[in-house]
Amino acid sequence: MTVHLVGAGPGDAELLTRRGAALLARAEHVVYDRSSMAEFLALAPQAVRHCVGKQGAIPAPAQDEINALLVQLGRTGSCVVRLKAGDPFVVSRGGEEAVALARAGVAVEVVPGVSAAVAAPAAAGIPVMVRQLARTLTVVAGNDDPDQVDWAAVARLGGTVVLLTGRAALRRIVAALRAGGMAGDTPVAAISAATRPRQRTVRGTLDQPPDPRLPPPLTVVIGDVARLDVTALEVSCAHP
Amino acid sequence: MTVHLVGAGPGDAELLTRRGAALLARAEHVVYDRSSMAEFLALAPQAVRHCVGKQGAIPAPAQDEINALLVQLGRTGSCVVRLKAGDPFVVSRGGEEAVALARAGVAVEVVPGVSAAVAAPAAAGIPVMVRQLARTLTVVAGNDDPDQVDWAAVARLGGTVVLLTGRAALRRIVAALRAGGMAGDTPVAAISAATRPRQRTVRGTLDQPPDPRLPPPLTVVIGDVARLDVTALEVSCAHP
Repeated sequence: MTVHLVGAGPGDAELLTRRGAALLARAEHVVYDRSSMAEFLALAPQAVRHCVGKQGAIPAPAQDEINALLVQLGRTGSCVVRLKAGDPFVVSRGGEEAVALARAGVAVEVVPGVSAAVAAPAAAGIPVMVRQLARTLTVVAGNDDPDQVDWAAVARLGGTVVLLTGRAALRRIVAALRAGGMAGDTPVAAISAATRPRQRTVRGTLDQPPDPRLPPPLTVVIGDVARLDVTALEVSCAHP
Repeated sequence: MTVHLVGAGPGDAELLTRRGAALLARAEHVVYDRSSMAEFLALAPQAVRHCVGKQGAIPAPAQDEINALLVQLGRTGSCVVRLKAGDPFVVSRGGEEAVALARAGVAVEVVPGVSAAVAAPAAAGIPVMVRQLARTLTVVAGNDDPDQVDWAAVARLGGTVVLLTGRAALRRIVAALRAGGMAGDTPVAAISAATRPRQRTVRGTLDQPPDPRLPPPLTVVIGDVARLDVTALEVSCAHP
């Protein structure tokens, strides 16, 4: 009686872990959020698919309903995979789902995933931590009520700041960081659809931030590392 | 002419990505740091192995020498994998290596990995970000000259703080966070050898921190989430 909370990684199905792939291969039920998960669902050919994301005009079910579905499926004793984008515990409701399952007496196995917080910048050639430039990495959910974050403390800490799901609130966050004393020429990079074929990177500064109207998912990197691009050269011996 | 900078993940070889495994399978050279990488090296049966970590009494080569080796191997045109623990860009010199390669005109492919910063807490049942408890995640290299980090800003920001390689400096960091105003009853968890068979978790608070004399690698989580354990129940349908 276990639900396997599996991180799918940033987008490219090759960045799924071997454990995640093995669980999908024998899953009897897969609960997932997005239609863009097709490549991952193809790895679970025998599974019943439960989409709990927004589908066209139909809104996503409430988190309580998703939790209840997971508990119900977990209790059947089937092999249940709850697939989450990125890592289940980074800017995600995976933690809430895990707590709900544990409280209901359903065991949880967490299979961590590659988080877009690090992998999206990397795909754009940006190492989020380089000793000489950034000794700290702060990851923030950009959208979820930005007023609940002490942006002045983020500005004071400096280092590298990564915003996930930060499209709607980017303007306000940039203003809050400036007000908190972060320099206007601090580099900013916005990476759209990282690790997918339509990946795009736009660079700017806090005073001239990239236009956030890029296709989601969007990852924003703020800090000196955002001016680097270590993948500027063409890669050989790449994907087979 | 490419060096593939591959993140090995937190320890368990099942947490390697599919892309990382595919590159190891056809690698002609693997450059790695630790003897504990045996399971990963077994995935690269044809590769010449270059250990650049400390080996018994023999100290590790300087970072410049490692960079030079990577440039030299990259220039041969062979399939070269530089294997890094965790993710290559999180509390790692992978960024410096990538910059050195790019400057030398050798292309770099970064294959991100599951970082212990998130996966080690997860393996101990701790979701690093849960909306109700932590809206930010700050990752810090604990050892690398802790005086260069503004711990008062970290304390003021709150949320979840994760220290990697923080064994030697843990006492000083805890004192700095207390001095910065972080509450003495803030939960702290130390996870030793996460995702490996000898994994062990010790819990405490800022005022009564866990003894850091646990076997490395050690990950320390500070914040309200550190009192959670969502994996308290036994897991079925687990490893095959």
